[in-house]
Amino acid sequence: MLRGYSLPRSPEGRSSLVPAPPWHYVGDFLVIEYWAEPEAVEAVLPPGLAPHPDPGRSAALFVDWQSCSESGGELEDPIRSQYREFFVVVNALLDGDPVTTCPYIWVDKDFALVRGWVQGFPKKLGSIHMTRHFPLSSNAGPALAAGGRFVGTLAANDRRLARGSVTLERESEVGPTHNDPPLLNVRHFPRLAAGRHDAPAVHELVRARSRDRAISPIWEGAAELELESAPGEELASLAPIRVGKGFRFTFGYTVDDLETVRDYAGSEVAAGAGP
Amino acid sequence: MLRGYSLPRSPEGRSSLVPAPPWHYVGDFLVIEYWAEPEAVEAVLPPGLAPHPDPGRSAALFVDWQSCSESGGELEDPIRSQYREFFVVVNALLDGDPVTTCPYIWVDKDFALVRGWVQGFPKKLGSIHMTRHFPLSSNAGPALAAGGRFVGTLAANDRRLARGSVTLERESEVGPTHNDPPLLNVRHFPRLAAGRHDAPAVHELVRARSRDRAISPIWEGAAELELESAPGEELASLAPIRVGKGFRFTFGYTVDDLETVRDYAGSEVAAGAGP
Amino acid sequence: MLRGYSLPRSPEGRSSLVPAPPWHYVGDFLVIEYWAEPEAVEAVLPPGLAPHPDPGRSAALFVDWQSCSESGGELEDPIRSQYREFFVVVNALLDGDPVTTCPYIWVDKDFALVRGWVQGFPKKLGSIHMTRHFPLSSNAGPALAAGGRFVGTLAANDRRLARGSVTLERESEVGPTHNDPPLLNVRHFPRLAAGRHDAPAVHELVRARSRDRAISPIWEGAAELELESAPGEELASLAPIRVGKGFRFTFGYTVDDLETVRDYAGSEVAAGAGP
Amino acid sequence: MLRGYSLPRSPEGRSSLVPAPPWHYVGDFLVIEYWAEPEAVEAVLPPGLAPHPDPGRSAALFVDWQSCSESGGELEDPIRSQYREFFVVVNALLDGDPVTTCPYIWVDKDFALVRGWVQGFPKKLGSIHMTRHFPLSSNAGPALAAGGRFVGTLAANDRRLARGSVTLERESEVGPTHNDPPLLNVRHFPRLAAGRHDAPAVHELVRARSRDRAISPIWEGAAELELESAPGEELASLAPIRVGKGFRFTFGYTVDDLETVRDYAGSEVAAGAGP
Repeated sequence: MLRGYSLPRSPEGRSSLVPAPPWHYVGDFLVIEYWAEPEAVEAVLPPGLAPHPDPGRSAALFVDWQSCSESGGELEDPIRSQYREFFVVVNALLDGDPVTTCPYIWVDKDFALVRGWVQGFPKKLGSIHMTRHFPLSSNAGPALAAGGRFVGTLAANDRRLARGSVTLERESEVGPTHNDPPLLNVRHFPRLAAGRHDAPAVHELVRARSRDRAISPIWEGAAELELESAPGEELASLAPIRVGKGFRFTFGYTVDDLETVRDYAGSEVAAGAGP
Repeated sequence: MLRGYSLPRSPEGRSSLVPAPPWHYVGDFLVIEYWAEPEAVEAVLPPGLAPHPDPGRSAALFVDWQSCSESGGELEDPIRSQYREFFVVVNALLDGDPVTTCPYIWVDKDFALVRGWVQGFPKKLGSIHMTRHFPLSSNAGPALAAGGRFVGTLAANDRRLARGSVTLERESEVGPTHNDPPLLNVRHFPRLAAGRHDAPAVHELVRARSRDRAISPIWEGAAELELESAPGEELASLAPIRVGKGFRFTFGYTVDDLETVRDYAGSEVAAGAGP
Repeated sequence: MLRGYSLPRSPEGRSSLVPAPPWHYVGDFLVIEYWAEPEAVEAVLPPGLAPHPDPGRSAALFVDWQSCSESGGELEDPIRSQYREFFVVVNALLDGDPVTTCPYIWVDKDFALVRGWVQGFPKKLGSIHMTRHFPLSSNAGPALAAGGRFVGTLAANDRRLARGSVTLERESEVGPTHNDPPLLNVRHFPRLAAGRHDAPAVHELVRARSRDRAISPIWEGAAELELESAPGEELASLAPIRVGKGFRFTFGYTVDDLETVRDYAGSEVAAGAGP
Repeated sequence: MLRGYSLPRSPEGRSSLVPAPPWHYVGDFLVIEYWAEPEAVEAVLPPGLAPHPDPGRSAALFVDWQSCSESGGELEDPIRSQYREFFVVVNALLDGDPVTTCPYIWVDKDFALVRGWVQGFPKKLGSIHMTRHFPLSSNAGPALAAGGRFVGTLAANDRRLARGSVTLERESEVGPTHNDPPLLNVRHFPRLAAGRHDAPAVHELVRARSRDRAISPIWEGAAELELESAPGEELASLAPIRVGKGFRFTFGYTVDDLETVRDYAGSEVAAGAGP
């Protein structure tokens, strides 16, 4: 009998690219609050979400993650427990309540890519780098103190797509707010049968659930953000027209649940253009 | 309106990791026919497939691919059109007819990984390398002639998992047979809602369909194959107990269809062990 | 006793990053002839070379290489025998005779990087991709025939630095000429002792030597070339002001010698700016 | 005029793979003290070093580095400021005084590779991973506290070469000692002129110099270490016959000097075997 939470399913169930939940995460965050063109934000909202009253409200996040499943076996082999991530969230309303949704996201490991698809994160592979803090005064690393400067970059397919920076000014009393509302994503898995390419096998709006959330002290300061265009990418349509504050902190949580908010099955689905 | 065949779906539909079918492929193949432990092969058969009368019959394939969608736009950016692949197929019977199925497969690009999942290929990322032939006599490259020696290797997560070689002896009259029968895969997409981790959203046995198949002259010769064990992998359970001939050729085809043979929805599904 | 042609030198001499010469090479080439700003070309000429009478004459080359040392052992492990390369050569005169010199070059493997430094190629690591030809008619690969279109790209540190294309028109009678004259490079190895950072331990103008050169039929056609700027790079100063023909062919040779043309030891050397 | 500390030297001096010293470093260390076969250690000593009275005394080090030159410009582009490293040091005597020397070392960036060669570190490219500590209690990351478990791994050319672990027990009063004595390396740069392949252009024993050294509190505990064999590697000859304590800490320093202890020029040099 084949066992396992994801493909490849195997006799012992040890081959799954994504092991069964729960999944534990901890990571260093760089969050940059900004506003994109309101029309561009509206254009990436999945069906059922309405524009947010603060038009174009968005955030860009760089994260340096370590994660594992319940056994913690991945921590014995660090290459299987670490990945870096960049994503954008835009703000919207669901039935009048503030929510966020993630139109674009990149990670640098396969397990994180598919674990993301299972949660409705539309992940692609990218190359993400972030300035690191070390607990030692050094010319080679910024302090967690006023003046400490942190930079994040994203590339995919050999092209630089995003660059952000945060120069710390003070400990933050409130922390970031643009990425605070509940996160709604779209789970989607295509169909290949001829004539049904536009009728995905899975297509549903879902609300992320998590537990055991923990956060370090948060530093905030002035931020910069650039999003660049590339073939096969529409990220640059969400480029900032105004940039707010940036934040730097460490965050951890556990995921083993998801709530389906709306099943799009049977809805009309638009085909895509070429790559 | 969001457009696109796969996530991420976007206003213009240009962001999809996998563009809409058809998908055109051409690649250099190294095929090694072999026999694994019959019990090990039986253990990886999906429900509905029965053991083949030639017990343990299998093949290992290394492929150096170039592919594109109908627009051919990927060929303007070679990093988005090329990938390498290693996979094993085992032989079985479906309703008494010979078929093959692919229990394990690795590729080195994200678009190929997800395009594989859509077809039921249980792809993970790996690092695949193959000796190349150049149309020039050289100490640095084997000839397509008796004595020409081609090697393929697979690694994943920094561990070498497979190594195969073929030393050409003659043009083949018949070509490889262990990978010849129709290919049956399992499309599978997990569910994350609490309490339903064992009830995948998609779970079906599918038969691959392709068209416009073309093949070069085929060379054959003596072959070697080693499969190694690693944490999070069960590939080594399919290690050879006997190795047959090896083959080297170029092959191309087009994919834009898939046939569902059996829907496993509602079947009992076994959870996996830890990673 | 420590043995080996290069570091790391070891008891058995098997650890050397670069094994002892001779080194055999075979590879697919994309050559794009062009002209850069004459002043920019003059600015990259090493001492002793004078501007060419055809000002700004240059070529950009993408190469998909396979190489090995005399034992051929690397071919048993393809990851250690393959690499891709992008470089520019500019034309100049040495004592009135036409020569070329390579100011910038990128490869994607460590052995190729250091093997290049030994020959005076100023290699850095990059990510190079080239459209491949397969000996089969396919939508997924260009033919070696009129209309066949080949693209090459270079990135380094996650930034796209170069893109070139050649659309084949005919078999070439003459082949490329901008990269034809003898190649002069600068071997250079820094010193770290305080006060002597500007007095390199090795600093000499060398002429490349090779043997057993072989070449396939050459296709030529219309070409495009773009060179982009990036921090820590000056490649874009050699961007084309006019692009000539492009060429596509396979070439092989063997290297085990080098001629010192001029020893710069004792010459004044200018320090660099920051990165 | 061409400028720059290393190749490629360029009009503005911004292209150098290695910018001019000083170089500032800060990184997280995992140090595992052990003893290898005394004969194996003696076999890797460069001329002039004698065996240490504690035969086979060695250490393996995994380091997660961030570094920059005086301008700090690399910190604005994290991909150019970060790298990971694995190396072994063995203990010896120079004129009766305890010293260490590094026979084998791997890094994952080109600038670190060549910057190492300039200092006499025999660097190759590898893939190095280390468990990270985050300042937050989490199932996904070890604490800097008794029971915290840190793992390091090294692979090169798709093969796993080393794995080490340290399980923290207590803050260390003394810190590691096997890597404490002054570090002696061999600067070496080959010659390619025919007939002189065995007469390197640079070949000298050097003593590392550094300044502005800083170190965090040091944790120590039980350690494990495995070194595996691979083609083209002799690391496994230094595999442990006994493993001592392991240590985990953060360390920073600055390098801009080097002392030549002995010039091997003119000494007989042994050629290497094949790869």
